[in-house]
Amino acid sequence: MTVRQLSLPELVDACAQLGVPGVGLWREPVRAYGVEAAAKLVRDAGLAVTTLCRGGFLTATGADERARSLDDNRTAVDEAAALGTDTLVLVSGGLPAGSRDLHGARERIADALAELGPYAAERGVRLAVEPLHPMFAADRCVVSTLAQALDLAERFPADQVGVTVDTYHLWWDDTAPARIARAGAGGRIHTFQVADWVTPLPEGVLNGRGQLGDGAVDLREWRGHVEAAGYRGPIEVELFNEGLWTRDGREVLAETVARFAAHVL
Amino acid sequence: MTVRQLSLPELVDACAQLGVPGVGLWREPVRAYGVEAAAKLVRDAGLAVTTLCRGGFLTATGADERARSLDDNRTAVDEAAALGTDTLVLVSGGLPAGSRDLHGARERIADALAELGPYAAERGVRLAVEPLHPMFAADRCVVSTLAQALDLAERFPADQVGVTVDTYHLWWDDTAPARIARAGAGGRIHTFQVADWVTPLPEGVLNGRGQLGDGAVDLREWRGHVEAAGYRGPIEVELFNEGLWTRDGREVLAETVARFAAHVL
Repeated sequence: MTVRQLSLPELVDACAQLGVPGVGLWREPVRAYGVEAAAKLVRDAGLAVTTLCRGGFLTATGADERARSLDDNRTAVDEAAALGTDTLVLVSGGLPAGSRDLHGARERIADALAELGPYAAERGVRLAVEPLHPMFAADRCVVSTLAQALDLAERFPADQVGVTVDTYHLWWDDTAPARIARAGAGGRIHTFQVADWVTPLPEGVLNGRGQLGDGAVDLREWRGHVEAAGYRGPIEVELFNEGLWTRDGREVLAETVARFAAHVL
Repeated sequence: MTVRQLSLPELVDACAQLGVPGVGLWREPVRAYGVEAAAKLVRDAGLAVTTLCRGGFLTATGADERARSLDDNRTAVDEAAALGTDTLVLVSGGLPAGSRDLHGARERIADALAELGPYAAERGVRLAVEPLHPMFAADRCVVSTLAQALDLAERFPADQVGVTVDTYHLWWDDTAPARIARAGAGGRIHTFQVADWVTPLPEGVLNGRGQLGDGAVDLREWRGHVEAAGYRGPIEVELFNEGLWTRDGREVLAETVARFAAHVL
């Protein structure tokens, strides 16, 4: 998503040229390209697929909508397995229209995880519940803190359900480092993502993530937290940023690699 | 601020006509009108001043800027006392330009409270540290949760420093009800403010607060939390909303009174 202006072949080529060893893919471009074809493209370039983004949206109340959501998530698990990644990131979903029941919505996510966790584990895929920044609690993700995500994940085995740690969503939370330690001790940090926090936020607040080093987040400190918790997996850079998307994708990727070296490593 | 299109005399008149018993005032219009004149205007109408908004912005690092901020906050305390309110709301301030040190900024707030708390208490004014939604952590308020606000306040006597509980900032936080209980037990809920959460958020996210009943917040449930914690003070409606500001102020105030009855009481 950081360079969504690149096609999959362009992305794979640019990663190979820049020495980027792995890439987190999104479902929509993968499906448009063809799941098997995308898997072959990435594999042939020697690139790892770090995660597939994303499943989730598990908060619906109606039986039909709920069944459709579970079906779609099983498909996402299948796609992750086909791509050769062991991690499917889950964005849990917001409040149903007219609802004010955050607690009920969070419990419906737990119900869905109980169905999806075994299905995923049988296919070698772990679900990574991602807490999103509290500004998304109403319309995108009722899981707002790492503590909430862990409370959900820990009801299930770690090879079924863990968490996504993303600096953009957690940087303000002084209790997050202790939760990262708890997640690491349980083997539940299934991926670590970095983005910086910049202001002012754009309308709708979705596409305002900052290039690494441009904002308020001490990215290296957060890398230290996950590493102290035992995490040794890939570090994903996930920037939703309208400004970056209007630029040349290869240039943005090269800049991001340089920023990663300067501000994360 | 909910009806900032009204002048102070219009506001006081509209409150009296609608049976609104008290009003939270902001410093800028009060100073423009004259502090003593505003105090007399409100007093003569039989209206209570519930709080004065706002002091704060206590995170600067430079000695000069820090001294200016403390001076300004002492002036705000004097203004609150002159208006006859016992509560000054504090918005703590964001990160200084280029800083990524949230912890240091929060400690500077504590240092400032140590200077301002006794000054305020001597004048019958309590400081009410307001946690702002985490989306404001970088540029407006590094105190993002009620737990953080209480951790600061509890270093001082309750008649010096307490907290502001505002549904707009806390509604997503499943740990906030327990913090409200803790705040109430310590006599530290110095004011309770309500606003609803609506999406999409506008650019800059400051002026997108929802009219009561329009959004995702179960306002009555939150009133229950503060009342269960022993709070018996005023409930303030604080809506920063561009749409409401373009309408007739008296009409907005009447609508807000009706919404308050329907969704809060």
